[in-house]
This record gives sequence, structure tokens and C-alpha cells, in this order.
Amino acid sequence: MIRIDLEALTEMARSIYRVVHPLLGSSNGGIIVGRGFGGDNTRLIDRVAEETVIKYIRDKNIPCIFIGEENGILKFDDKADTYLVVDAIDGTTNAIRGLKFSSASLAAASSDSLKDIELAVVINLSDGNLYVAEKGKGAWLDGKRIKTSNVSDLSESIVNIDVSSTPERLEWIIPIMKAAKRIRSLGSTSLEICHVASGVMDAHIDLRGKIRTLDFAAAMLILKESGGTFGLLNGDEHDMEIPLTRLKRFSIIAAATEELYSQIISRIKNVVIR
Amino acid sequence: MIRIDLEALTEMARSIYRVVHPLLGSSNGGIIVGRGFGGDNTRLIDRVAEETVIKYIRDKNIPCIFIGEENGILKFDDKADTYLVVDAIDGTTNAIRGLKFSSASLAAASSDSLKDIELAVVINLSDGNLYVAEKGKGAWLDGKRIKTSNVSDLSESIVNIDVSSTPERLEWIIPIMKAAKRIRSLGSTSLEICHVASGVMDAHIDLRGKIRTLDFAAAMLILKESGGTFGLLNGDEHDMEIPLTRLKRFSIIAAATEELYSQIISRIKNVVIR
Repeated sequence: MIRIDLEALTEMARSIYRVVHPLLGSSNGGIIVGRGFGGDNTRLIDRVAEETVIKYIRDKNIPCIFIGEENGILKFDDKADTYLVVDAIDGTTNAIRGLKFSSASLAAASSDSLKDIELAVVINLSDGNLYVAEKGKGAWLDGKRIKTSNVSDLSESIVNIDVSSTPERLEWIIPIMKAAKRIRSLGSTSLEICHVASGVMDAHIDLRGKIRTLDFAAAMLILKESGGTFGLLNGDEHDMEIPLTRLKRFSIIAAATEELYSQIISRIKNVVIR
Repeated sequence: MIRIDLEALTEMARSIYRVVHPLLGSSNGGIIVGRGFGGDNTRLIDRVAEETVIKYIRDKNIPCIFIGEENGILKFDDKADTYLVVDAIDGTTNAIRGLKFSSASLAAASSDSLKDIELAVVINLSDGNLYVAEKGKGAWLDGKRIKTSNVSDLSESIVNIDVSSTPERLEWIIPIMKAAKRIRSLGSTSLEICHVASGVMDAHIDLRGKIRTLDFAAAMLILKESGGTFGLLNGDEHDMEIPLTRLKRFSIIAAATEELYSQIISRIKNVVIR
């Protein structure tokens, strides 16, 4: 049984928003203060955001196993069986520079497995827009039910991509860039997937092989509960059973419809096989 | 002498914001209602936005020659010598779908020449952020002086690109995509250039050869008054003297610094010569 409810998850997201929103676009937020669980540099803004969640867990005495970008795995109760996966700032570059696309992402799971995520919250750190999902029940943006667009043809679709810092993989995405109607690149994975969930864009594709479970755990549930299709590439048939505590890195595709997902896959199938 | 002041230009921008903001993300806004001056489809949201400016000019009896995307050239006074260049919605796709990145762009010139733009206003239609510039005096965001970043190295820069719907030109931008630190693609030319002006991003590049003077007239002045470098490609040395009433189409580069501009040019020089 899961020991965190949607209300607690939402309160955590809002507490991150309150702390981080005033720091957006400030150079202080970008100061490097250490190195995180995943090996990336930790910025001041990342640290204060994650500490906000840890303080909340301690204050409310929530029995969980915490998995975060900066602190790694923290067990708050010996008998805890609820996993809390947190990316306290997704889109750190945007947040530091003041580009208004960054988010915090929180997911709760009933076991140490990607397939057992039950609750998800993503908050837009610029405007406070709140995406939530409950497994089997649906997804909402600020309390209003969301669903993906019904776009099924790549030539009619707005496709978001992330291609930064991986020149050797750029060629892989070019067939998609040529075929899509519009290309966007916003720079915050969770928020980009949530934009597909809410019908603002039609797909998000990241073939860089860098995205960890904690980066997409929450947004994946929000997308699926909105009717979208989510796929992990460069993996195998057991990927949905991988432990949340293992930060395996993936390439991902999020699409509004199964038809659009298939069209995308068919154009990059050489890559998927690798 | 210019017959429009910054206050009037700002009031026009705010009146567009008031009318368009409630329509963002609504499907009604996307209905095609005709064809514009430039040959593109006119959407309902484009039309109501431009009509707002025309009504303002009529109500306040402003003597000017109006140049707009939907209505083309309208002379409001036989002796008018002030040119008002308006892109009432820049980023129509984003505005219709609900992606929070669209803008209105207004520039006033003392003659029918790109080089004689004296005043510029760009408003973000999602959050009301207002960029203004006055030739020789500076540029401001919501009343606060702005300047570009000091990033001079492409490998350290956040570069925004627009590559939608021009598969045959995608190859041209690939060297830039491989060399930049981060790639973004937000989908509203004026606002993308203003993000370079305010230091949020380091460059904006659009090699599609589709951008008209009315798309960049205002943002170009805002960028230059912020210390940035702006260049028109596929043109000649007289491009800055081209008439605003002629909707010639260009490829453009906006960069935070001259050094960064040079690095970008050097990587696409084969293209520039064409």
C-alpha cells in the first residue's frame, strides 16, 4: 500500500515552487555547490529545491524511501515500502537563465519498480501550473481533466526534441525534424511530456540516451493517464520493471497517439535496434 | 519627425494583450478566416489582434502609414510620414495550441526604411512582459534596462533555432546544432530575439529565408539597443535601407556579442553566399 497521498505530493510540489520561483533567472541560483547522485553538477537552486522536499518529509514524518537527483537514496523509515522519486528541478539551465520552462517532478510508487508508480505531480516553476495523475483514474491540469491531441500524422504534428550536447546522435533525429510540421525544443523533459499530455504539443522525443527514470517517472504516468503512448528505447522488454533505485539512462518517446508513436518509431528504427 | 510616441505604442501592445490573452489555447482562435498580405492563412486570433491596433489608430486619430500582416498597407492620413509596422501575433501556432510563447510586435519608423526604425515594443502575450527600445537610448524589459549576455563562444551558448517546414535547409543549421551547448526552439521570432536581448539566451538563428521585415523590425531595434548584433543573410549591403512597405523575406541571425555572431557566420558561410 502506498503511504503518500496526492495531497502530500501536491504540497511538496507547491513548496518547491514557493522556494524556487523567486530564484528563477538569478545568477546566484547557478552557483555550483557539489555533485549529485547521477554525477552531474549540483547548483544552488537544485539543492534548495530538493532540501525543501526532504524537510517536508521530516516535518510530516512521511514513511518513504526517497530517491533524488542530489541526495541519492534516503530511507526515512526502516519499514517504509513507498518510494518517492523526485526531480526537484527539471530544466536547471532554463531556471538559471530565466527561460520560463522549468519544472519539479514527483512520483510515488508502491514498490521499487517503474511499473508501480501510482501517483504523479509535475509543477511548472514559472507559472505554478500543476499537472497530477493517479494510476487508472486520470490526469488533470489545475483540476481540469486533460487528454492528448488526436494528431496521428507526423506531417501534421508539433514535435518537441532535445538534441543538446550530443552531436554524435543528431543524425538520428533528422528524419523526424524533416517530417514534422513544427519543431520545438523547450528544455525541461517533464514539462515537455506534460505538454504532450495536455494536447499543447503532439510528441516529445529525446534520443540522447541520457534520461533517467527520475527524470520521466511522474510525467510518464501523467501522459499515459491522458491517453498518450510512452516508450523507452535502447532497453528490453523488462524495462518497465526496472528498479527506481537504479538510475539507468534511456532514450524516450512520448506521443499523443499510438499511430503517431508508430510513425516516429518507423523513422528511427535503425537507432532503436542499437 | 515621428508622430507616434512610446506611450501610444505601449498602449497598442497592451490592448492586443487584453484581447488575445483570453483566447490563447482556445480552438476558436485557430479558425481560418481569410488570407493575409503576405499570402499566409489568416486565423481568427490574428484578425482580432490586428483589428485592435487599427481601431486604436482610428480612435486616437494617429497620422501614420500602417503595415500589417493581415491588412497590408493602410494610409490613415494623406500627409502621414510615420510608418507603423505591426505583427499582431508572432507565434500563431503556439497561441492557438496554448504553448506559452507568443508575442505582438510593433515598430515605428520615421521613413519607409528599415534603418529608420525609432521605437519598438514587443509584448509577451502569455505573461504580459513588455520589451521596449528607443533608438540611441536603450532597451528595457518591464521598465528595467536590459543587456545581452557576454557569451562569446558558441560551445558555451544557448542557441535558439527555427527549422520548421524547411527540410531542404535543415543541413545548413546542423554545424551550429552540433557546436552549441544547448539548443532551444520556441516558435515566436520576436520573442526569441528579445530573449537574446535580455540575456536569457545567447543567439537566435533562422536560415529558412522566410522572415519578413515586419517579423523582426521591432525586435531588431530592441536587440541592438541591448548591445547585441543582428544580421540579415541572403541580402546585400543595402538591406538596411529596404522599404518597410516591401515584404522581402530573409534569413536572420541575432547574437549576444559580435564574437558569437562571427563564430556562427563562420560555420554557415557556404549558406550565406547563396
